[in-house]
Amino acid sequence: MREKQITIRDVAKEAGVSVATVSRYLNNKGYISQKSELKIRDVMERLNYHPNEIARGLAKKKTRTIALIIPDITNPFFPELVVAIEEVAKSKGYSIILVNTQDGDMEDNHFWTQLQNRYVDGFILASFEMSERVVKAIENSKIPFVRIDRAAEDNANDSIGLDNYKGAKLAVEHLIEAGCRKIAHISGPKSFPPSSERKRGYVESVTDWAVRNGKESPEDAVIVYEGDFTLESGKLLTQVLMNEQKDVDGIFLGNDLMAIGCLKALKLMGYQVPQEVAIIGFDGIKLTEMVEPEISTIEQPIYDIGAVSTNKLIRKIEGIEDDHSLPDEPSLDIRLVARASTLGFGKFR
Amino acid sequence: MREKQITIRDVAKEAGVSVATVSRYLNNKGYISQKSELKIRDVMERLNYHPNEIARGLAKKKTRTIALIIPDITNPFFPELVVAIEEVAKSKGYSIILVNTQDGDMEDNHFWTQLQNRYVDGFILASFEMSERVVKAIENSKIPFVRIDRAAEDNANDSIGLDNYKGAKLAVEHLIEAGCRKIAHISGPKSFPPSSERKRGYVESVTDWAVRNGKESPEDAVIVYEGDFTLESGKLLTQVLMNEQKDVDGIFLGNDLMAIGCLKALKLMGYQVPQEVAIIGFDGIKLTEMVEPEISTIEQPIYDIGAVSTNKLIRKIEGIEDDHSLPDEPSLDIRLVARASTLGFGKFR
Repeated sequence: MREKQITIRDVAKEAGVSVATVSRYLNNKGYISQKSELKIRDVMERLNYHPNEIARGLAKKKTRTIALIIPDITNPFFPELVVAIEEVAKSKGYSIILVNTQDGDMEDNHFWTQLQNRYVDGFILASFEMSERVVKAIENSKIPFVRIDRAAEDNANDSIGLDNYKGAKLAVEHLIEAGCRKIAHISGPKSFPPSSERKRGYVESVTDWAVRNGKESPEDAVIVYEGDFTLESGKLLTQVLMNEQKDVDGIFLGNDLMAIGCLKALKLMGYQVPQEVAIIGFDGIKLTEMVEPEISTIEQPIYDIGAVSTNKLIRKIEGIEDDHSLPDEPSLDIRLVARASTLGFGKFR
Repeated sequence: MREKQITIRDVAKEAGVSVATVSRYLNNKGYISQKSELKIRDVMERLNYHPNEIARGLAKKKTRTIALIIPDITNPFFPELVVAIEEVAKSKGYSIILVNTQDGDMEDNHFWTQLQNRYVDGFILASFEMSERVVKAIENSKIPFVRIDRAAEDNANDSIGLDNYKGAKLAVEHLIEAGCRKIAHISGPKSFPPSSERKRGYVESVTDWAVRNGKESPEDAVIVYEGDFTLESGKLLTQVLMNEQKDVDGIFLGNDLMAIGCLKALKLMGYQVPQEVAIIGFDGIKLTEMVEPEISTIEQPIYDIGAVSTNKLIRKIEGIEDDHSLPDEPSLDIRLVARASTLGFGKFR
């Protein structure tokens, strides 16, 4: 059985101050005498009172708005994620404002002050690599937040992650199974954990495969070019790769947008896809089905990622504790979606 | 020669009140006696003082933030526009927050109150059809704004438009020139002025062409299906169109995203594009070059649209009058970009 919840009123009464004073103390806003402060702190400790977000919310201006911070609006992964988050947020009475920004901008304290000034109730950070400094700025802002698309091992309470390493292994093993004999990887920025996880999966898969095949220097099987997740980098690096490396017949791209650029480059260079080169991406954006051949991919449950993170954030905002037995959390599994860009190659034909 | 500019100080001095009082009057904020109000109004009239945005800005909280309101983040046209607007805004020291919303949401007064609460200095409305009620709500918000992508004839001071009618004619005449003999149109929502302008250009072109060719009922040349600018509607309506109409050999799509969906549908139905059916879109998004065949389009200068509208808004925010002799306004012309999806058809082959 649960004990009666201690409220801000109980604290005020016990400390002999007004509720407004306790609220000022909790929110670090406005004048409060040292004497009152000490009294409040003492009572809070005695009553074992931990102000939850609801209590703090009472004293704060609530706008039922969530800020969603994304790194690249031109990558369809993010618009698809935005739509999911908006839908879930709307169903719970919240609206969304979007901020499209670069890692660098977040280094600026001004960025966080601005966010506070906009009176958002919470924010969702999608796919960012953050320095210590930024993490500190976020904590200082005291706004509830959730992070998306971090490395899986980093799956803390405030963060939604998928197993990028496992996804990459699925992709590379699929290329191996198709019969590819020289598999290259065009990665995302190495500073970004999900892309280094994908690269790690690739490196391990091709190295193991080289060992299994009795190669003397298994590390020679590793061919990596570092891109930046854009269409253009997928296109450009494929051109560089195909010029610098002989006989590449399989390419694992760090995301789908680069895979679409890769497909374009291969066609321009006169390669038959998938007969001569098989390619596979990562993300599961709709456009992979619109190109010819359709591109195989490691599909992330984009909608569910949005839904889970939004629900998690709203629970934080409203001070509801995470209950992992609740059924509203679909499991966030990635899966291989094999399409013509690999199924038309070698053994699969 | 210009006369000395009348300032808020001159008004305050002349009316015998403080600058703060005049500011309260101008911003409709805080208490002000009726007597002071009458005096200020009288002096303003006498001195012919029209408070510009700078003067009003002095009394307001400025955040150097612009809100950009877009209707569909999953249509790459808008992300491309967002990037342009962000780049120009950033170069002038402004940052952008995005709101992805539907026409309906803007009917809600709450939407505009929220926007005011966010302390944005101005906003850009991209591609919306607005009711009288919404226009009134915008005016009431008293925040400077600019509208993008309105019908060309509506090119007022606060609005950036392109000649959608002319663009549509270019598209349809290109299909006629290629040798198409039965040309259909999948339009955007008819309630939205740019799409009804595009449809008007289509209807006029095919009707004129039927008349030129001595058809008895030129109106029979008009085949229009109304879509909603999404990939899915382009795909679905192409399937309906090709099932319901015989011998269609040219399709003009109301935007590029629907053209990509149309291409997919035609392939699934077994049509050779462009040998059997030529298609052309509208917008000029990058993805038209990523599919096979590349899709012809009516290219809008997306970057320039973003740049011109941002500069216009910032001038409004900062109270700088529009000077049309300034060279910072590129002309916003659309142009035909002919690619394989039409060049591989009939007479062009």
